[in-house]
Amino acid sequence: MTHLKNSFPTEPVQAQFPPALIFGTGKRATLPETLKNWGSANVAVVAADVLKESVGEMTRAIRSAGIEVRIVYCQPAEPRMKDFVHVCEELGEPFPDTVIGIGGGSVLDVAKLVAALGDRPGQLRAYVGKGLLESRKARLVCIPTTSGAGSEGSPNAIMVDEEDHAKKAVISPHLIPDMVLIDPELTVSVPPHVTAATGFDALCHCIEAYANKYAHALVDGFALQGISLIAGNIAKATNEGTDIGARRAMALGSYLGGLCLGPVNTAAVHALSYPLGSAFGLPHGLANAILMPAVFRYNLPAMPERYARIALAMGVGEAESPEATAEAGIRLLEDLIDQCSLREGLKRFTIDSSQFPELARQALQITRLLNNNPREVDLAAAQSIYRQSFPDS
Amino acid sequence: MTHLKNSFPTEPVQAQFPPALIFGTGKRATLPETLKNWGSANVAVVAADVLKESVGEMTRAIRSAGIEVRIVYCQPAEPRMKDFVHVCEELGEPFPDTVIGIGGGSVLDVAKLVAALGDRPGQLRAYVGKGLLESRKARLVCIPTTSGAGSEGSPNAIMVDEEDHAKKAVISPHLIPDMVLIDPELTVSVPPHVTAATGFDALCHCIEAYANKYAHALVDGFALQGISLIAGNIAKATNEGTDIGARRAMALGSYLGGLCLGPVNTAAVHALSYPLGSAFGLPHGLANAILMPAVFRYNLPAMPERYARIALAMGVGEAESPEATAEAGIRLLEDLIDQCSLREGLKRFTIDSSQFPELARQALQITRLLNNNPREVDLAAAQSIYRQSFPDS
Repeated sequence: MTHLKNSFPTEPVQAQFPPALIFGTGKRATLPETLKNWGSANVAVVAADVLKESVGEMTRAIRSAGIEVRIVYCQPAEPRMKDFVHVCEELGEPFPDTVIGIGGGSVLDVAKLVAALGDRPGQLRAYVGKGLLESRKARLVCIPTTSGAGSEGSPNAIMVDEEDHAKKAVISPHLIPDMVLIDPELTVSVPPHVTAATGFDALCHCIEAYANKYAHALVDGFALQGISLIAGNIAKATNEGTDIGARRAMALGSYLGGLCLGPVNTAAVHALSYPLGSAFGLPHGLANAILMPAVFRYNLPAMPERYARIALAMGVGEAESPEATAEAGIRLLEDLIDQCSLREGLKRFTIDSSQFPELARQALQITRLLNNNPREVDLAAAQSIYRQSFPDS
Repeated sequence: MTHLKNSFPTEPVQAQFPPALIFGTGKRATLPETLKNWGSANVAVVAADVLKESVGEMTRAIRSAGIEVRIVYCQPAEPRMKDFVHVCEELGEPFPDTVIGIGGGSVLDVAKLVAALGDRPGQLRAYVGKGLLESRKARLVCIPTTSGAGSEGSPNAIMVDEEDHAKKAVISPHLIPDMVLIDPELTVSVPPHVTAATGFDALCHCIEAYANKYAHALVDGFALQGISLIAGNIAKATNEGTDIGARRAMALGSYLGGLCLGPVNTAAVHALSYPLGSAFGLPHGLANAILMPAVFRYNLPAMPERYARIALAMGVGEAESPEATAEAGIRLLEDLIDQCSLREGLKRFTIDSSQFPELARQALQITRLLNNNPREVDLAAAQSIYRQSFPDS
């Protein structure tokens, strides 16, 4: 039993957060009141097509308040740039005064871009990068319906560029919503494999922001609390989806994960995960979950104390050394991956290990994330992590 | 060695936070740029009079950017309602488009009210209470220069009503600034006894928000991280005031404490502390510090696990039971009070123990805070806490 040292990284930081949060079961009913207070007259809803019933109810309530609403439904996964353009065309004129995104991270990313660039969608590529977007014309409400991406709390919007199949990010404070509305009831119908995958994505945001070369004391608290909430509830939310307590905790944990993405962001798991999505169609959260143990074991020697604190936040007891505590945390992570049947989910995909060298090469180009990683990842390390993560391929 | 249970209170909550934070040594130099981006033309600065030199530099930089600035200096402690009216009169016409508060919690509270009610200061009493203020006309920047009150992150402004000598709070999302600028360099000149007292106030915000009947999983992470930052740095910031690392950690910790005040707020320590200020002139932070050990020992049986987690966040090792861990935390708190010479500071004040029954009666009227306390406080308990806290009186 050692005593863990604590560190307080307090370098200069600039951070933007959503100014208003409404959280609670059934709270989607408050939406018309907010829109009336804002004086919204012309609302565009961008929503996941699997949510037609709930979204229909919500838009009827908005219309009853005398506010015009248009809805565009879109596919809830991996939007391409041309999908964004298509959504904007479908919305048509006039440009809305308020955009409401309702869905998982991909749908919210589209909604965020509609609010900022909906009047000039063809220019999207010009804004890829950090801080290029200079304003947003429409008010923006984000209503997350999976507990995962944390897009509602982040300045990021990520699209697949169909020209080179790479994921590209527009990052700007103007992509942070005016209001986040989290109604955990909307997550109850999310199927187990999606709950598990998106939940691990959220857990990964928190862990990668905490064990990060640019970790910051401002964000450390969000991250550790997100880790506690998710690790303590993901198995129950996955396997007993109607447990509203677990759903509430997951919704809050994933929001806290989103708050980590602006000031600190993620690291090697996310960088190595992106090519797996492009090459084999692996969902983002599932790819992250499968990679996490091997990446964290690789990183552990660089930050044993931080990985130990992550383990404590997950609910592990303190062991004889920071390294041992951290390793117990990684074992608990593997246990949660099993409890959530994520390796089962992997069987639907064909992973071709002969592609690992090429995937590693692609991953190493995502320097905006790899620069955050506590330990340098080279080609050999990246390939080794892929092999450890997919031992049966 | 037991294993601590974790709890995830996730009741409905509505929370507002400052949308932008700029944090870092020397970052006050970025202020003119922010004002230019906003298009500010007519700025009012409300500042603590002890800061004339730094404030002079900052306003010169703003003027050099072609922006008009007026400054009103005010006393840095316990403002009365008539002080607020006086500040508004001194500012005069026209009403500014932007208000910048620079100072400790009291000065920031005045600045917040100037931004919201500066055009009708005589109506202040009509807005005492929660949610009565319906808008704010001016943009608002808060620049805290003590690491204490956390006013920059809270929807509260507290004034002494000179008619009945009671502290009264205006609470509204419209009192949350558009931007918080934390430049820890501005706190370096704060003298030791003020650093200690305001730092304990900040620690108290975090602890009372975490060990609270209305504790919330959203806020728990802010609170625990604030506790770690403050407990780990308050002795150094007090006794080696030029240690910029300790100052940075304190500035961030007190900001996190401020973020706790909106959604959850404080409890019995703050309620029992207010009458001590009115009766004996005890500074708010000092009064809080002296009361904390006795109040927390009284509360401990109602929430042993939460007080144990507070102790762990303070850096205490886990003991054989939650109660023992929690008690070790309270002993560390007493140790920090000694290291910061707060009981020495008490010698400047005359505490008349014959007034304790009357003070207890007054404290029990502050139900907006006592309702949050994990254990009911009656007259006998309040008096007993006063006696334990001032054994020499």
